[in-house]
Amino acid sequence: MPLFLNTRDAGFEAAFSALLGMKREDSPDVDAVVAGIIADVRARGDAAVIELTAKFDRLELAADGLAFSEAEIEAECAKVSDEDRAALELAAERIRAYHARQMPEDARWEDAAGATLGWRWGPISSAGLYVPGGLASYPSSVLMNAIPAKVAGVERLVVVCPTPGGVVNPLVLLAARIAGVDLVYRIGGAQAVAALAYGTETIAAVDKITGPGNAFVAAAKRRVFGKVGIDMIAGPSEILVIADGETDPDWIALDLLSQAEHDESAQAILVTPDAAFGQAVAAAVDRRLETLERRGIAGASWRDFGAVIVVRDLEEAAQLSNRVAPEHLELCVADPEALAERITHAGAIFLGAWTPEAIGDYVGGPNHVLPTARSARFSSGLSVMDFLKRTTIAKMTPAALRAIGPAAERLAISESLEAHGLSVRARLDRLNEG
Amino acid sequence: MPLFLNTRDAGFEAAFSALLGMKREDSPDVDAVVAGIIADVRARGDAAVIELTAKFDRLELAADGLAFSEAEIEAECAKVSDEDRAALELAAERIRAYHARQMPEDARWEDAAGATLGWRWGPISSAGLYVPGGLASYPSSVLMNAIPAKVAGVERLVVVCPTPGGVVNPLVLLAARIAGVDLVYRIGGAQAVAALAYGTETIAAVDKITGPGNAFVAAAKRRVFGKVGIDMIAGPSEILVIADGETDPDWIALDLLSQAEHDESAQAILVTPDAAFGQAVAAAVDRRLETLERRGIAGASWRDFGAVIVVRDLEEAAQLSNRVAPEHLELCVADPEALAERITHAGAIFLGAWTPEAIGDYVGGPNHVLPTARSARFSSGLSVMDFLKRTTIAKMTPAALRAIGPAAERLAISESLEAHGLSVRARLDRLNEG
Repeated sequence: MPLFLNTRDAGFEAAFSALLGMKREDSPDVDAVVAGIIADVRARGDAAVIELTAKFDRLELAADGLAFSEAEIEAECAKVSDEDRAALELAAERIRAYHARQMPEDARWEDAAGATLGWRWGPISSAGLYVPGGLASYPSSVLMNAIPAKVAGVERLVVVCPTPGGVVNPLVLLAARIAGVDLVYRIGGAQAVAALAYGTETIAAVDKITGPGNAFVAAAKRRVFGKVGIDMIAGPSEILVIADGETDPDWIALDLLSQAEHDESAQAILVTPDAAFGQAVAAAVDRRLETLERRGIAGASWRDFGAVIVVRDLEEAAQLSNRVAPEHLELCVADPEALAERITHAGAIFLGAWTPEAIGDYVGGPNHVLPTARSARFSSGLSVMDFLKRTTIAKMTPAALRAIGPAAERLAISESLEAHGLSVRARLDRLNEG
Repeated sequence: MPLFLNTRDAGFEAAFSALLGMKREDSPDVDAVVAGIIADVRARGDAAVIELTAKFDRLELAADGLAFSEAEIEAECAKVSDEDRAALELAAERIRAYHARQMPEDARWEDAAGATLGWRWGPISSAGLYVPGGLASYPSSVLMNAIPAKVAGVERLVVVCPTPGGVVNPLVLLAARIAGVDLVYRIGGAQAVAALAYGTETIAAVDKITGPGNAFVAAAKRRVFGKVGIDMIAGPSEILVIADGETDPDWIALDLLSQAEHDESAQAILVTPDAAFGQAVAAAVDRRLETLERRGIAGASWRDFGAVIVVRDLEEAAQLSNRVAPEHLELCVADPEALAERITHAGAIFLGAWTPEAIGDYVGGPNHVLPTARSARFSSGLSVMDFLKRTTIAKMTPAALRAIGPAAERLAISESLEAHGLSVRARLDRLNEG
């Protein structure tokens, strides 16, 4: 049974705070192990990567076999059905079209003092994308990470994806090919992150590493942050649905379960002003859990972290949702646009009952890599911007320097940074001589 | 003596690679200490913060005296000279004008399938700005961090700034007031970062923490990353100057020294096709080092990490600069615009001999919080975007769902995510009934 709350109840605030503070992730402290793996890969390169892959993935690799060959990729891609290929291509096309609109513009202007100011965007030169192996090896995630990088103009884009026991997901390789990935390495774990960050004899270091992974991968990304860029540290998936009760309860149940089935630590929350509807959705969830393939995972998530919250009205629903700052927010109400105006923190909003969250996972266009664990309060989903960086530009004329230079000199002196002040003063003196 | 290199020399590539790989920071491993401090502040709140401040800053505070009062701020601000105040206000105005132009636009469109897509930017609700105490307590950094936050629309903005022995920098308080900071706490170190991330009885938690600090502050920021947002982990300052030799060598010497004087670990590099000019600049540096107030710091930086690199031409200079990816890049050449076109990685570019880097530190307008330690390869200076987050938006119509839903269902099935597929299928079935 999920948690049932009603904002009219006396104990609501305490119960809701407990829900917000709930620790969903059992994150083992693997930091010491990961530090050792990174040091080993830095010291011994390919040899360490090969040993660790044999140990963790039960896979013997040669140094010249860390990456899939073109022929291997070709053979794997040939296994994909035409229908799956067409679906991946439609998804890729829509994701590309959405992200192409995100390209930010350069700027350059002259201000009243005569200074030319501005900025310029440029792509990161190289990026590495981590793709988990096994159950969570999602071809859609390959598209969601690789396409923004390609749209940004990243020149060299590689994927690392462990293949435990040598088992490969052909759709992952096809997605990499469709997205324009240059190389796919069959390695994973902290050793793959270390190889991407520091390079080995056969793996060239990259400038940024993105993509989800287990606790080892997350700890490794945190450790190499600074040496290379990283995206966010992803946590288990979440959905919050605000429903006015005018939708089929079974639809909402399936939307909640589509996050719950990801992970036992996932969280699905329904917020509704209609208590009877809340009960109906919970009943529909139970019915679906009888037959769902992943009922073990989804059932555990719903039981341990699920919640149905009955509110006074939609305004209160929006306020609660903003405190949760959910990764995915569905607004299944008569006027979703009006309700969206009340939302301040959410990774992605799905407007109206015809927009199940799953559309956003695959073919909507927006990115499905989104901030989890309440981090939508301060961060955004993956975008083209994650593969670009901005260089600021300033150019003074003699007149501009005369106008604003003295203030710079003054502040430099106040900060006891004499050479800063002198570098301005030397030029001002020349102007005064002239 | 700094390093003198010439790209025509046989040993150049090895020497340049060594320069790139040089470890400039002596970063003590303070992680265990910091973990203890964070745990202590989480467990005991204000009491821990007060004890740690007494221990590290030799300052006894009461729980109701952690923040400066309005009267205290007023009294400190009154000590600032009119000239310093005017200089700060000019800087603030120019920084505000520059950052106002960075506000990104929302987007919303309908695509061929009938799907409405887009995104919306919104401010982070609250931010905490770390300002170092003592020598590195720079009022300009208060402006550079606080103004982008205010421009973004951050509602609650607080500063933490240690005041060892109770010594306060009035300009820091005035800068905070000018920038619109709500509260200034006289605490620092890992305990201040922990208080901002987790909150205490008297300090409300914030959603993002920015600003530079020592090894303890950096380790604390790395640890709380995920619970709150952080900006970059800042390293020692750097400048690379590309000069064609037509500028007064003394100007270039002062520009190099204006970074060297920050920190013994700072790095200043001159790249020039004119060997004699390189020698002349080095001689000018030596002359200036005889009298510079911070000659101890600047001299050590120049001796240990400084370099003069003689190149064949400006194209080669640009290539070397791109490998360095400097925080600050000055182009003191006849046609700086043309050379800037060849630059792919740099935090900030200063065009032409009339634009000393120090202008950018104070009054230019662009942010002076910039990526160090070669991280301009993958990250950008602080901006309004660091205080905003983006929510993506998707809305399907029945027709849009009919067009792209089947592909989503197909991909969900291929990823063994049955509920994802069913959430789409249930709606498609309804449409087919209708």
